[in-house]
Amino acid sequence: MANTPEYRRDPVTGRWVLIAPERAARPLALSHVKPHDRRDAERDRCPFCEGREENTPLERFAIRAPGSVANGPGWQLRVVPNKFPAVRPLANTDPIGRGLLESVPGYGEHELVIPCSRHESNPVHLTTAEFAALLGAYRERLLTLADDPRLAYATIFQNVGAEAGASLAHLHSQILATPFVPDAVQLELDGSKSHFASAGRCVFCELLQHEIATGERVVLTTPNFVALLPFAGRFAYEVWVLPRTHESRYEALTDELTQELAEVLRTVLSRLDGVLAEPAYNYYLHTSPLRSPTLPHYHWHLELIPRTARAAGFEWGSGCFINTVAPERAAAELRTSY
Amino acid sequence: MANTPEYRRDPVTGRWVLIAPERAARPLALSHVKPHDRRDAERDRCPFCEGREENTPLERFAIRAPGSVANGPGWQLRVVPNKFPAVRPLANTDPIGRGLLESVPGYGEHELVIPCSRHESNPVHLTTAEFAALLGAYRERLLTLADDPRLAYATIFQNVGAEAGASLAHLHSQILATPFVPDAVQLELDGSKSHFASAGRCVFCELLQHEIATGERVVLTTPNFVALLPFAGRFAYEVWVLPRTHESRYEALTDELTQELAEVLRTVLSRLDGVLAEPAYNYYLHTSPLRSPTLPHYHWHLELIPRTARAAGFEWGSGCFINTVAPERAAAELRTSY
Repeated sequence: MANTPEYRRDPVTGRWVLIAPERAARPLALSHVKPHDRRDAERDRCPFCEGREENTPLERFAIRAPGSVANGPGWQLRVVPNKFPAVRPLANTDPIGRGLLESVPGYGEHELVIPCSRHESNPVHLTTAEFAALLGAYRERLLTLADDPRLAYATIFQNVGAEAGASLAHLHSQILATPFVPDAVQLELDGSKSHFASAGRCVFCELLQHEIATGERVVLTTPNFVALLPFAGRFAYEVWVLPRTHESRYEALTDELTQELAEVLRTVLSRLDGVLAEPAYNYYLHTSPLRSPTLPHYHWHLELIPRTARAAGFEWGSGCFINTVAPERAAAELRTSY
Repeated sequence: MANTPEYRRDPVTGRWVLIAPERAARPLALSHVKPHDRRDAERDRCPFCEGREENTPLERFAIRAPGSVANGPGWQLRVVPNKFPAVRPLANTDPIGRGLLESVPGYGEHELVIPCSRHESNPVHLTTAEFAALLGAYRERLLTLADDPRLAYATIFQNVGAEAGASLAHLHSQILATPFVPDAVQLELDGSKSHFASAGRCVFCELLQHEIATGERVVLTTPNFVALLPFAGRFAYEVWVLPRTHESRYEALTDELTQELAEVLRTVLSRLDGVLAEPAYNYYLHTSPLRSPTLPHYHWHLELIPRTARAAGFEWGSGCFINTVAPERAAAELRTSY
């Protein structure tokens, strides 16, 4: 952890990252708008608040008070199709043949998971029960979306703050299900499969053993989960949360474990709020493809990326990211912050 | 070019992109600060303006008036090391062995090319001679950096506007030379090599022939260059500029062609300024590795990406980008705009 720059290779994907702590000294810091400042301004017209259910498409799943009626008030959590979907449940999904220029109709599902009926923009303010229900809803949707044989993968993600791409303040996770496994996940599947072929072991399990032993990049551990800074993280203060026991499918998460995972996530997010003054961030789930059997080489996890810097010409042009905070230093800050 | 979403595969890299025009209707548009508004505020303390040469490390290359002295006034273009480098010319570059966790000292060069001595933030306001000299300086640096056998690649890029990562307004391109070929370039090299193996032809040459014939994604052509919207562009209004004749090495660009390329770039950039109201953007050069012979399968080009949307949880988590403006529509706008 010297102050000189260092190229690090991600042990799963083989991707190179540049850790350049001195670079943080340069004049620019990302102009930061606290993501929760505009919460109140939107309250009066928020389409996700209780009582405005007519502003969203019809719900597909909900946790409701006994006696409440679908698409009316009285809910704790709702899953609805996105009103402005990036993909659509199209009837015709035949490839459009153009030789060198290949395309396929944008078939898919784009859903929102709204984890609370009150106008809340910070996941840290969800109760543990609400957060656990959100994590349980992810599992429920993965199982339901798997029923459509044309869908190969469901990407589940959360944008917090406008700088992280959130267009509405009221908390909502998104699920975007596609007919193919996205590149970033395929890269992990391929890398971990290749590691398994040569080492006979899940690369994530091996990493966890090493990281827990040294502890220098660990933020916290619970009986079943670890939160740590990835050795070759692309973003400053990037945190991964992984189950300690081998499991390739998020769908295997039990209700009991959703509670424990909710506590881990809330703790990590509230420490990030403390260290980075309520940063905008994204988190997303990396799990196995829909209908996948248990895989010996893959290991589901959540990746949490604070928007501490902007990708610029170098990152877009080269694919190599510059991380200006050594993961070991960020981990030390996140361990001691409350 | 229907209004329904479409997955498109990049013919070079195989990367999938989602073209989703309806998605542009959703509430959020990127809050836009014109990149040139703060130009004047910085003028009094700009380290790149003529007369403040002592604020940069010693120049490595310059175009100067006869009789002017290195590191003093009287220059048109300067190449200087970055004062806040992401990589460094380290003496020891031995890999740091850690088993699963592999790293290498951050060896490299990080240079700036300042293309005019006056305080100018918009490349469109460079004279053709200045722009051509900038393009010539890229070539000069590629040839010079190739002398260091430890460097494998030089990524050349330009950030315009704070939203695109520019920390200082005064125009400057950056060159970041690394001991490895970056992922994004390697992916193109591999993809084009594999296409050549099966089709016996440069995939870019094949694309150019097709694109010039149909014209629907072409912005403009000159005797030696084409500006076009890539079929599977990741970003709305993304433009590529390619030489019409096969050439894998940017270093082969003649002085005469730098003039023509400068005119093409200025025209494209000024049309983007018109259509998108002076957007922030990046452009970067994709060319062969340093010291590469002429390759039959690769074709150098410039990629220009306006910062019209933010990458969010879906893009970072999946690696699949959502482009809300069909390249054909963007091309039509850029063809007719002046």
